[in-house]
Amino acid sequence: MHRIPVGVLGASGYAGRELCALIARHPRFELSFATANERRGERARLGGAAVRFIAHDDAPLSSAEMIFAALPHGASAVWVERVLGAGARAVDLSSDLRPGNGNGTAPYGLTEFARPKLRDATVVANPGCYPTAILMAVLPLAKRGLIAPGATINASAASGVTGAGLTPRTDLLFGEVTEDFRAYAIANSHRHLAEMRTVLADSGADADLIFTPHLLPVARGILATITVPITETLADPLAPYREEFDGEPFVEVDAEAPSLRDVVRRNVVRISARHVAGVRQPTLLVLSAIDNLVKGAAGQAIQNANVVLGLDEPMGLPA
Amino acid sequence: MHRIPVGVLGASGYAGRELCALIARHPRFELSFATANERRGERARLGGAAVRFIAHDDAPLSSAEMIFAALPHGASAVWVERVLGAGARAVDLSSDLRPGNGNGTAPYGLTEFARPKLRDATVVANPGCYPTAILMAVLPLAKRGLIAPGATINASAASGVTGAGLTPRTDLLFGEVTEDFRAYAIANSHRHLAEMRTVLADSGADADLIFTPHLLPVARGILATITVPITETLADPLAPYREEFDGEPFVEVDAEAPSLRDVVRRNVVRISARHVAGVRQPTLLVLSAIDNLVKGAAGQAIQNANVVLGLDEPMGLPA
Amino acid sequence: MHRIPVGVLGASGYAGRELCALIARHPRFELSFATANERRGERARLGGAAVRFIAHDDAPLSSAEMIFAALPHGASAVWVERVLGAGARAVDLSSDLRPGNGNGTAPYGLTEFARPKLRDATVVANPGCYPTAILMAVLPLAKRGLIAPGATINASAASGVTGAGLTPRTDLLFGEVTEDFRAYAIANSHRHLAEMRTVLADSGADADLIFTPHLLPVARGILATITVPITETLADPLAPYREEFDGEPFVEVDAEAPSLRDVVRRNVVRISARHVAGVRQPTLLVLSAIDNLVKGAAGQAIQNANVVLGLDEPMGLPA
Amino acid sequence: MHRIPVGVLGASGYAGRELCALIARHPRFELSFATANERRGERARLGGAAVRFIAHDDAPLSSAEMIFAALPHGASAVWVERVLGAGARAVDLSSDLRPGNGNGTAPYGLTEFARPKLRDATVVANPGCYPTAILMAVLPLAKRGLIAPGATINASAASGVTGAGLTPRTDLLFGEVTEDFRAYAIANSHRHLAEMRTVLADSGADADLIFTPHLLPVARGILATITVPITETLADPLAPYREEFDGEPFVEVDAEAPSLRDVVRRNVVRISARHVAGVRQPTLLVLSAIDNLVKGAAGQAIQNANVVLGLDEPMGLPA
Repeated sequence: MHRIPVGVLGASGYAGRELCALIARHPRFELSFATANERRGERARLGGAAVRFIAHDDAPLSSAEMIFAALPHGASAVWVERVLGAGARAVDLSSDLRPGNGNGTAPYGLTEFARPKLRDATVVANPGCYPTAILMAVLPLAKRGLIAPGATINASAASGVTGAGLTPRTDLLFGEVTEDFRAYAIANSHRHLAEMRTVLADSGADADLIFTPHLLPVARGILATITVPITETLADPLAPYREEFDGEPFVEVDAEAPSLRDVVRRNVVRISARHVAGVRQPTLLVLSAIDNLVKGAAGQAIQNANVVLGLDEPMGLPA
Repeated sequence: MHRIPVGVLGASGYAGRELCALIARHPRFELSFATANERRGERARLGGAAVRFIAHDDAPLSSAEMIFAALPHGASAVWVERVLGAGARAVDLSSDLRPGNGNGTAPYGLTEFARPKLRDATVVANPGCYPTAILMAVLPLAKRGLIAPGATINASAASGVTGAGLTPRTDLLFGEVTEDFRAYAIANSHRHLAEMRTVLADSGADADLIFTPHLLPVARGILATITVPITETLADPLAPYREEFDGEPFVEVDAEAPSLRDVVRRNVVRISARHVAGVRQPTLLVLSAIDNLVKGAAGQAIQNANVVLGLDEPMGLPA
Repeated sequence: MHRIPVGVLGASGYAGRELCALIARHPRFELSFATANERRGERARLGGAAVRFIAHDDAPLSSAEMIFAALPHGASAVWVERVLGAGARAVDLSSDLRPGNGNGTAPYGLTEFARPKLRDATVVANPGCYPTAILMAVLPLAKRGLIAPGATINASAASGVTGAGLTPRTDLLFGEVTEDFRAYAIANSHRHLAEMRTVLADSGADADLIFTPHLLPVARGILATITVPITETLADPLAPYREEFDGEPFVEVDAEAPSLRDVVRRNVVRISARHVAGVRQPTLLVLSAIDNLVKGAAGQAIQNANVVLGLDEPMGLPA
Repeated sequence: MHRIPVGVLGASGYAGRELCALIARHPRFELSFATANERRGERARLGGAAVRFIAHDDAPLSSAEMIFAALPHGASAVWVERVLGAGARAVDLSSDLRPGNGNGTAPYGLTEFARPKLRDATVVANPGCYPTAILMAVLPLAKRGLIAPGATINASAASGVTGAGLTPRTDLLFGEVTEDFRAYAIANSHRHLAEMRTVLADSGADADLIFTPHLLPVARGILATITVPITETLADPLAPYREEFDGEPFVEVDAEAPSLRDVVRRNVVRISARHVAGVRQPTLLVLSAIDNLVKGAAGQAIQNANVVLGLDEPMGLPA
């Protein structure tokens, strides 16, 4: 069967590596090129696939039908323009085109909520890892008008270190991270906040959001612990999720609290919810777990590309 | 100089081990006995001290002036009675005598807030590890009337696995915990909640509390990430803490967010606070870190014993 | 296409879990039953497969064509007898039937060296994890007469904690293993030694073996660091391996030293070799890495079953 | 009591940090200066001490009586010259002046074997971390003529990542090291080998040495697993060690195999030894554990400085 040529811009970081590995296992994709300026000329083995990095400028953009851009934030938008100019389509994993950041013309690829806009799109803004974990947990409540008006949603989330990328930094050395845990970008200073707030506002919810990310001594995974003040106690706190995600191949709704090891190396969001006991304001505790590199980045990008290209959505993805 | 004979009931668990190690380094304490029913007769080296475990029933209670009880919750209260009957004093590390659990007659040993009641006390209820981290962060606001009436305080906290004790459990094996992270006792079902709520109510605050503990893949340390709706934006969010803890040897107030490695193996609480940006309700984000076995258990127990016995409060403690 | 019914005796340990997960992904196997005495009646999700444990005694042995026994050492041989009596075949993952332990009638399933004896065998003794890593590195030299007569082969190996099983033990708790490293079963006291020595002697090598296992703070993987005194310096130290393993789907011979992360979750042995510089006795340093639960246990068991049943050898295995 | 002014050249790396922390706790030392070119002007808190880094060139060398040089290998020798020219003494933690590297005029500070040469020395070559662990285990045998002539000593050792320093390197990021284990500098290519061989040869042993270092996913600690062919089976394999190290405050000889957690944060070497069973050549398995940053670097440097300055040798050191 015909294989669809795809390219990866920025293939040497964690998301780029994961993309190449997923592409190698995808039954309909074929890797045309993988770029990495600092490692141009090097060969690497990514998830079983042998890859030779070329410079970004040497990428034969028009040879590919779909190009995944896993470039640093700020450096990506210009490359998406070039991709479109070359007649290819793009899934952009940076924040450049996301709600609250870009001009809002690219559909936002939180796949389960975005399918109609994704079909035949030429470019998709792939969501950030934290926004994926948090919005999948909050949007079903927002869509149903269950969030108490004027409420403050509180999302405390923790991510494995691959979320910070492969760039060498002293504070991310093993000797500095092992046996440690810390919050960062505190008091609502994280780059992902504008993305989440914009999507939340667009959903019609009248709610503020507090977001506190933490750095975990693990390689992969995000767990978001979210409290949502709600309008009324629900008969079944899982009902909004079971209803919203019925039949979804990449969402698992479960009464048991999710753990990172339930989701690592899989393209899934795992969600649980309970009423908080002993507080006056009816409140839902929602827990949401993803692999930051799969459903939080490369996996969702492939999922989006599958939709854009009219392929089976779960094709080539580990569920 | 005369050494004060002290004993440890339940010396083979993590808190008991830490107590023996701290006692060995204490310039005025001398270990009279250390009990551990299941390991009776065994010898161990705890923090440089050679210890021989005896059965609880063989403990010469009256030979000690001060006895630390690090027995399982539920099993401790009866031993405290025996200790008092033998004419010794007790610091009880279990939850048996704590606010919301016991009958409230034993002073609650959150040392920095408890000194007047501790002096010459015969028994002290040593606080839980999570309550220590969280109450040290919340009480300074409560005492100053800064917590918004009717507010919901949200405490998301993560603890190293020594918090779960040394009992063999499949789910605490290294192979199950490494690279994982999960919430537990969710939706306000943790045993420590009654303790925190009672103390909070006694402080005069009209506030609810949501508490979500998590299990971290580290050995030691608790980080609490707390949001507190406040009555008004403060000129300096650290001011209540600097004021409350001025001159305290075991509290560090700092503009920089604390991390576990700032506090492990030390008898300190490290606290930071900031206003949350971009939310309508003025809210403080307070971060608080302790070593769960030191300031959250054995260290604070020694600190309390020092006060009870009229010794210098910091004696023998790692700051 | 017809699916072959297979069963797992002892499905709740690490090897049993891995077997169930691999069986669920195997295109020709179908799980008939999975036993676990202590968890009988419980349901579990193993690698995407939903499994309900039954008691060993309730296993419908005759309903399966192939049964994998992942029972404790000493408890397995009697079950293998029952399996054979019920007309099924068995791959035994315990040490009961292995060289140096059993009566030597079951072929030893170090697959790459055992194929002729495996075809149509009724029972296979699946190799231990350490022996797999070490013998794959040593046998190619032994078969070629390259080991210096009377030599002492020195194998220092380190294993992730899943090698010690899922039984709760205080010394395997996360809090005890993290940030630690230690040797165990030292001075040639490990159970696997008889297995390795017997196979080595059968290969014709006149050599002694020193084996020192270590416990690593990782979940999975074994790295063996082996020095072999050899008869002469080789033109290419990798040549014996390239020759022996040419075309093998599950052996990777590489000039670069292997690391655990090259092999985890894969059914491969990765081997590298170099001449040791600056010593009088020509000596080869051979490094060998496997995933102890895959190529060192469940993966190799499936590989052996594939050969026994006349299926494609790599079927269903992650390479 | 008079405090002795000491300085640290290269204070921002792991060894330099540890030096500053130990100096802060030393009852007779007082930190005159701490240099760190890239962080000049910054303030840091090292082990409770507040330190302000200055440039190397700004160091008031003559203000200190003793200067610790923790500079990169190759950059240190010139600074030692300047220190001596300024009338101060030096303990050099780099390899520049060590046996097999320098001109051999500086005494080699393996303290327990070097005291006569250390007293009143002006400069000391502080041993490497691996050489400390290995030579402490081998020299007692060499001195007693117990090593079989022509033997090959085999040292397989594993180190925590702080041994690789604080320089940002992609391969030392947490995400790359966690759950991994690998050998490096294999086949006798490690820089420390010349140091060990020279000292071994000087001891009179006629033996070759194979040294294979490994990178452990832990922050601190070295475990060396050493096999030594010996002339005859000993009545007590620990006897040479008990004899050699009788009364030593920083050497622990024990029948039980040492583990990293026995030694981390302590200035000790812990040694165990056993006869290897089932091999023709009488062979001793010796296990040796240290904290690479304490007894393997900063701690031993302080120990040496204490001897040079005529202070009590254990002063200020954690045993």
